[in-house]
Amino acid sequence: MTRTNGRAADALRDVKITRNYLKHAEGSVLIEFGDTKVICNATVEAKVPSFLKGKGTGWVTAEYCMLPRATHTRNQRESAKGKLTGRTHEIQRLIGRSLRAVVDMEKLGERSILIDCDVIQADGGTRTASITGAYVALADALQTLVNNGELAESPLREAVAAVSVGIIDGTPFLDLDYPEDSNAEVDMNFVMTSSMRFVEVQGTAEAEPFTIEQMDAMRSHAMLGLSRLFELQREALQA
Amino acid sequence: MTRTNGRAADALRDVKITRNYLKHAEGSVLIEFGDTKVICNATVEAKVPSFLKGKGTGWVTAEYCMLPRATHTRNQRESAKGKLTGRTHEIQRLIGRSLRAVVDMEKLGERSILIDCDVIQADGGTRTASITGAYVALADALQTLVNNGELAESPLREAVAAVSVGIIDGTPFLDLDYPEDSNAEVDMNFVMTSSMRFVEVQGTAEAEPFTIEQMDAMRSHAMLGLSRLFELQREALQA
Amino acid sequence: MTRTNGRAADALRDVKITRNYLKHAEGSVLIEFGDTKVICNATVEAKVPSFLKGKGTGWVTAEYCMLPRATHTRNQRESAKGKLTGRTHEIQRLIGRSLRAVVDMEKLGERSILIDCDVIQADGGTRTASITGAYVALADALQTLVNNGELAESPLREAVAAVSVGIIDGTPFLDLDYPEDSNAEVDMNFVMTSSMRFVEVQGTAEAEPFTIEQMDAMRSHAMLGLSRLFELQREALQA
Amino acid sequence: MTRTNGRAADALRDVKITRNYLKHAEGSVLIEFGDTKVICNATVEAKVPSFLKGKGTGWVTAEYCMLPRATHTRNQRESAKGKLTGRTHEIQRLIGRSLRAVVDMEKLGERSILIDCDVIQADGGTRTASITGAYVALADALQTLVNNGELAESPLREAVAAVSVGIIDGTPFLDLDYPEDSNAEVDMNFVMTSSMRFVEVQGTAEAEPFTIEQMDAMRSHAMLGLSRLFELQREALQA
Amino acid sequence: MTRTNGRAADALRDVKITRNYLKHAEGSVLIEFGDTKVICNATVEAKVPSFLKGKGTGWVTAEYCMLPRATHTRNQRESAKGKLTGRTHEIQRLIGRSLRAVVDMEKLGERSILIDCDVIQADGGTRTASITGAYVALADALQTLVNNGELAESPLREAVAAVSVGIIDGTPFLDLDYPEDSNAEVDMNFVMTSSMRFVEVQGTAEAEPFTIEQMDAMRSHAMLGLSRLFELQREALQA
Amino acid sequence: MTRTNGRAADALRDVKITRNYLKHAEGSVLIEFGDTKVICNATVEAKVPSFLKGKGTGWVTAEYCMLPRATHTRNQRESAKGKLTGRTHEIQRLIGRSLRAVVDMEKLGERSILIDCDVIQADGGTRTASITGAYVALADALQTLVNNGELAESPLREAVAAVSVGIIDGTPFLDLDYPEDSNAEVDMNFVMTSSMRFVEVQGTAEAEPFTIEQMDAMRSHAMLGLSRLFELQREALQA
Repeated sequence: MTRTNGRAADALRDVKITRNYLKHAEGSVLIEFGDTKVICNATVEAKVPSFLKGKGTGWVTAEYCMLPRATHTRNQRESAKGKLTGRTHEIQRLIGRSLRAVVDMEKLGERSILIDCDVIQADGGTRTASITGAYVALADALQTLVNNGELAESPLREAVAAVSVGIIDGTPFLDLDYPEDSNAEVDMNFVMTSSMRFVEVQGTAEAEPFTIEQMDAMRSHAMLGLSRLFELQREALQA
Repeated sequence: MTRTNGRAADALRDVKITRNYLKHAEGSVLIEFGDTKVICNATVEAKVPSFLKGKGTGWVTAEYCMLPRATHTRNQRESAKGKLTGRTHEIQRLIGRSLRAVVDMEKLGERSILIDCDVIQADGGTRTASITGAYVALADALQTLVNNGELAESPLREAVAAVSVGIIDGTPFLDLDYPEDSNAEVDMNFVMTSSMRFVEVQGTAEAEPFTIEQMDAMRSHAMLGLSRLFELQREALQA
Repeated sequence: MTRTNGRAADALRDVKITRNYLKHAEGSVLIEFGDTKVICNATVEAKVPSFLKGKGTGWVTAEYCMLPRATHTRNQRESAKGKLTGRTHEIQRLIGRSLRAVVDMEKLGERSILIDCDVIQADGGTRTASITGAYVALADALQTLVNNGELAESPLREAVAAVSVGIIDGTPFLDLDYPEDSNAEVDMNFVMTSSMRFVEVQGTAEAEPFTIEQMDAMRSHAMLGLSRLFELQREALQA
Repeated sequence: MTRTNGRAADALRDVKITRNYLKHAEGSVLIEFGDTKVICNATVEAKVPSFLKGKGTGWVTAEYCMLPRATHTRNQRESAKGKLTGRTHEIQRLIGRSLRAVVDMEKLGERSILIDCDVIQADGGTRTASITGAYVALADALQTLVNNGELAESPLREAVAAVSVGIIDGTPFLDLDYPEDSNAEVDMNFVMTSSMRFVEVQGTAEAEPFTIEQMDAMRSHAMLGLSRLFELQREALQA
Repeated sequence: MTRTNGRAADALRDVKITRNYLKHAEGSVLIEFGDTKVICNATVEAKVPSFLKGKGTGWVTAEYCMLPRATHTRNQRESAKGKLTGRTHEIQRLIGRSLRAVVDMEKLGERSILIDCDVIQADGGTRTASITGAYVALADALQTLVNNGELAESPLREAVAAVSVGIIDGTPFLDLDYPEDSNAEVDMNFVMTSSMRFVEVQGTAEAEPFTIEQMDAMRSHAMLGLSRLFELQREALQA
Repeated sequence: MTRTNGRAADALRDVKITRNYLKHAEGSVLIEFGDTKVICNATVEAKVPSFLKGKGTGWVTAEYCMLPRATHTRNQRESAKGKLTGRTHEIQRLIGRSLRAVVDMEKLGERSILIDCDVIQADGGTRTASITGAYVALADALQTLVNNGELAESPLREAVAAVSVGIIDGTPFLDLDYPEDSNAEVDMNFVMTSSMRFVEVQGTAEAEPFTIEQMDAMRSHAMLGLSRLFELQREALQA
């Protein structure tokens, strides 16, 4: 299989991270994984969900949405349907758990950070781009709190990013775009921290169960891609 | 009152229209009225609502949404609430009626054009920017149908655009931004066609009822602003 | 065009206002604009919405509904559908804004008046009849508070009423009934106060955009009709 | 216990049946049981629910609603809540079953009659007034079908009506008004046909279980009241 | 008509009551009326609904649900539909009222008992089995409060149970199973206390109105069956 | 850490599979993983979702629910809330994907198998028990189709089962019960087929990211446990 632009099997698409993308949010990032484009806005709120009230610890959560025409054919809005699809629930829970893994909630104190990931153009990998961009928006929002003197230091422990790997005709490929994803037998998402430890691993056999050797090969590709994503996040945050 | 950047009372903000903004929709426009930014995507569907089936005529409709953090403080998503607010209903019905006024539905044939207006950043005038940008996205989507040979000629009769005028301390101002809008006693939206006829007029006294003279003064400002918007639409479509 | 009962182009239908129509509400009015019949009930509540708590000011809001068989063919109940239509949202927001324009919220104090407008028979002009009748129910409810000694004086600044004007075959007609409304090219609703100032103006080109001259002609008809409605409200309240 | 207006323990309140109350429905009745006022509109539809399609038989069903301020304090609209209460479900199912008991569905053919019972003023007994009035609206709607030549004869087998009986301080009272109902230990509703057979019997001990003797005493009162209601229905239909 | 297993017209099906069926609830019962199987779980909560707060009295309420495949063909889940059916509302309100009739709410104090009746297999009589089993779960939950020292004595006044009687071909039969119920002309449910007084009586003519003599015959059968159910409850609670 | 009953770190809890548990479903299984008890009912429907119509292939899907008091404290019913939680969506999508992985949809033909997994008692591992039991119910339902002559042979390719592994204090433990799960730093679910290939892998760091070595250790435990579960499924199906 030849990939678009002659991309290698273990290469990421072009990744672009634009900070301060919109003006109102405490952290606002446009992240692009090739043609996939996601706006990640981080909002700081001076309150926590009721199950945390009075415990002195904070909370980080996420919401995920796609513009109706982010995709090749139009999807009905979830607001018009009156409820979220199972897919949306699954993705926004995944983003929230991934971000919480790198935040020291006691240092954050009784505050919530809510990350909105809005996909304006989709071409595969919207959930992994969302996590990777959301981390940068989160870092900016927390830095705002440090700059304002509301926090003594950032409660971030390390970085978090995500990437997908798929198997097509028995071979693993990193960071699938939409046409590749549609042909993949297996799709596996890896969320790791910058100390190269795992936060979330989700693998699904779309067509054919996969072997232990295939799982290991996908994991190797993912770790390579994630190392590169951590570099790109660092560069963006230092710019 | 001095306006931002020394803008005159009857001057528009900087307006920018970017065509082909996203890749999937048949028409895709980013329109900016100052800091207000709206993505307008036009989708062509080969079917009509049930009340039109078999009548040989088409339909144009619109949906409107704001990103949760398009505004200074975050708004809850309507998909999470499970229903649209009254404000959203009101605005998307207005956009739909405005666009239908300039389309010859018989020439369109049994097809629907659905325009999605998604506000990614709000600073006043989101509904007027939406209508003005939606027209350009609609024109592009209809041109696609002409280019494909599906339509012999575009069913557009003329252009449509919209602008707001407000009264602050008794004086009318064109195209209010958000801080101005918050101080306005009256807010009036005008939707006109390029033959300078009215499609929609909506005036609301937020604080103090307005006189017939004030209504006429607002109307004059609006007609001036709309003439300029029609020029900008033409330039964008010829680019 | 000949109108039913030989009505002149600038004449209202027979308008009838019955106070104390039902026994439980603090203000209860049946208003009839020809065959359009709306029950307007005003309820006083000793609380305000949360965004006003502790500010010492009051609130006035409205809900609007039609009996399923108020119309020629039956409409499904919004309670059975599980949500309000866009049209209902639009109308009840309009009624609420219109009434708030004539109430001094500081004099009202931390109280809410909720006006329910239930259309039991529809024949065009249900929103304008609702506003006109709701004002009388509101006046009665506020007078109850004065009579009870809860308010020193009525917080009403002046009266408010509404009327529609439409253009049929290029000619403006006042207070359209349903068959007229179905044939109108333009439908414009005017909400004014008794000092002849505007609270809301909403004009919609249903079929053909309208000129500035047509807008002025509609406005003249509306002002004539509204002068007569203010008289009828006064007579009803003095009866 | 002395009842309002010196009413006897086994006497109905004043009952008034106004036919042709509103102009659009095929049958439209205002029924009053004292201060309880219910509008019953019957709509004929040329279709049946899907479980009956193609079987050649008809259907009769009902919906029930109260105006928000039909009661002493205001109730939230079910359309605003987004769902029907259990009480509404219970009542509208009861009305529907009661009416179906007297209609020959094969004679009706593949048609539905939908009865809307809208309580505009409540003072106890809204469900029994609804059934009693709905029967008259149903009879009128069916007669319309006969008059139009759509049916050879009315599919009504006999009349149906309903009344409540309650026990207060151990004594049974017929047709409770709201203050009486609030003090009743037992509330029992009887729906009968004009051949004096039972369609529905629903008794509920609100405070204290009741004996077999009390049940028989309530039944006697109910049968007396129902005989009188059948007379009143007949008179109304012959007027 | 011959009944399954040669059951007499006035005989119950085999009734089996299993206490401590599941481990988490304060009272947990599996009740079987023949092939009808219902899990009744009683939960104690240290709070009351808002309308009772601060009054020093308790509350008992119930919820009712069927597994989708409790029945011969599968029913859609109410959670997937997003709302309860009218039938479910009707049944759970009936169960709640029945149980409240035998509890001294002042002795219970500001506590709620919530009974969940989940039908895992349905073969007619699910509501009567639910009430009969719910009583035993309730008794166990209240005994837990006595055993814990939270209550000085059980607030139960007496037992409550329920049974159905139907008329098939003019003859009354006790405790109908599903095939019998499908053929019944009349279905009547009786809820009584162990002092043989009535809490709820609900009779419905499914096909043909019923006479006063038939009502009396059904009542006799019901009282016989209920005497036996009270014995079975007593035996279960003493086991 | 000592486990309940002295269970080894790599040992399953007692697993019990009861076939033909309820009488209506085409496949009905009660599966117990220790104190976790799930009823799995398989329903055959002679239709497929609309996206598959006319393609000649079948579909397998699942729904998941817990009785409100399956858990230590009561959970509100999703039917009462009016929507499914994100957790439910996630789990039922997982069950559906897992089962589809072992069914040859072309052999199944245009039929759907819907598996209902209803947790009547929860003690950790409800999703893995559901998948393991659902497979047996699915096998029974498919065998019914073979026995009826509707299918020439079962479309099952192999078996599927699931198990969880968690890390507590750095050590991996197989098949966590609820108290163990509450203390786990990592929770990882493995769904495999009987050829020991992976269908789904889902690992989540609840408290602390995990290393590649820990992931491998969890995988080893899971494969051991799954081998045993495949034996137990085989035994149950041969019984």
